Amino acid sequence: MKLSSATLMLNAALTEAQRLGVSVCISIVDAAAWPMAFMRMDDAPLGVIDVSNKKARTAVLFQMDSADFAKIAHPDAGAYTLENTNGGLTSFGGGLVLRAADGVLVGAIGVSGASTEDDIAIARAAANILTA
Amino acid sequence: MKLSSATLMLNAALTEAQRLGVSVCISIVDAAAWPMAFMRMDDAPLGVIDVSNKKARTAVLFQMDSADFAKIAHPDAGAYTLENTNGGLTSFGGGLVLRAADGVLVGAIGVSGASTEDDIAIARAAANILTA
Amino acid sequence: MKLSSATLMLNAALTEAQRLGVSVCISIVDAAAWPMAFMRMDDAPLGVIDVSNKKARTAVLFQMDSADFAKIAHPDAGAYTLENTNGGLTSFGGGLVLRAADGVLVGAIGVSGASTEDDIAIARAAANILTA
Amino acid sequence: MKLSSATLMLNAALTEAQRLGVSVCISIVDAAAWPMAFMRMDDAPLGVIDVSNKKARTAVLFQMDSADFAKIAHPDAGAYTLENTNGGLTSFGGGLVLRAADGVLVGAIGVSGASTEDDIAIARAAANILTA
Repeated sequence: MKLSSATLMLNAALTEAQRLGVSVCISIVDAAAWPMAFMRMDDAPLGVIDVSNKKARTAVLFQMDSADFAKIAHPDAGAYTLENTNGGLTSFGGGLVLRAADGVLVGAIGVSGASTEDDIAIARAAANILTA
Repeated sequence: MKLSSATLMLNAALTEAQRLGVSVCISIVDAAAWPMAFMRMDDAPLGVIDVSNKKARTAVLFQMDSADFAKIAHPDAGAYTLENTNGGLTSFGGGLVLRAADGVLVGAIGVSGASTEDDIAIARAAANILTA
Repeated sequence: MKLSSATLMLNAALTEAQRLGVSVCISIVDAAAWPMAFMRMDDAPLGVIDVSNKKARTAVLFQMDSADFAKIAHPDAGAYTLENTNGGLTSFGGGLVLRAADGVLVGAIGVSGASTEDDIAIARAAANILTA
Repeated sequence: MKLSSATLMLNAALTEAQRLGVSVCISIVDAAAWPMAFMRMDDAPLGVIDVSNKKARTAVLFQMDSADFAKIAHPDAGAYTLENTNGGLTSFGGGLVLRAADGVLVGAIGVSGASTEDDIAIARAAANILTA
């Protein structure tokens, strides 16, 4: 994935967040979980910086959206404590796997700061750029 | 335990994983929890590197398979939060204690990347080398 | 400092880096050292992600450019080992304090990936936005 | 890089270490610094496990052999404290960049446990596999 794609996604996420009237952090990582781009909107709580980072990291490391990761890492599910690995992972929505139009995994995006539903919608608006 | 034994176990685990058609990471540690050997099969998700390490570490540090550790570290069990010690432990199957033919603890093996059942089967195929 | 200012600085830094024909990472932090914005240009080595972050962090935490910090933290200077504090700091150029037109400290920028001279020039091109 | 290549390199390194009569650890990472394969020879000191890992990590993150990294990260050189980034890096020989026959960076190998000269020779014997 190129920085130009990440920049388009950041802008799409910012536009969607403004439309929803919320302040979030947006983190984009490559397919090996290394940071590519990050932005924190004015008024986002400081604590969500790391949350958006970890959502993106969780999604790409296990090749699944963080909301799906939550299902397997729950105390009553099969892989409880999985969230303790890899420096700490995030078991709720807002981290989406990024795939190119041909389906290849190219990275992940994490959004945090609004409701989980809005976080997911913002991340989705960004991810759609890659397959538009 | 000698590296020659660890190498035999790695090969047995790889053979079993290939037979099952899955991609996993395999970590072998000695009786003091220090890494001896590690391999990541092509196409295993990056997140499972640390999971296989932690499964092996969990098993040897508490001298029990990680699936048994899960029973005591669950939120409803007697030692909840035990998984937060020692840099983070893993409360699900795939980490097996390694014992020599005379029953002496010589280390542990962790396997991650497939279903928990397959992870355990692969680890078992490797562990059986020591008592064959 | 607002995200809108950070975005202007990121763009100015990218433009200067492209003019110099180099690939860098650019990190902008606020006056409390919390990340505001980050971008990694295509082909920048992965190791410089953390370097750009630490340059920005070093500058804002001690309210001096990282090249000045280098003078006091060198083994032969008065505060040797200061670079071991705060999770690890960076004793060479490329981290600049950001001040508003009235001189108030508003954050810092770190640039890494090119020669130290170019890193500083890129960071300076961005910092100048605030006082233009 | 495939595991099959990493395995060939591990074996070449072990053969060279045995020829030299030394005990080392050997770490192979991919182009994004993620572990691919690791082996610790019998009698290698426990402390060199992390050294071999960090040598490989240093080489790939900055796309240069760790002996070259040492030149820029020395207290009297231009990037002093660079070794404090990325979780701690290694400023001496034994970490080699791995390149395919076409010159593309595919990962790195770190060897530690013998003299630096022998560590480098062992790593070189492994790296040569890729271009043979």
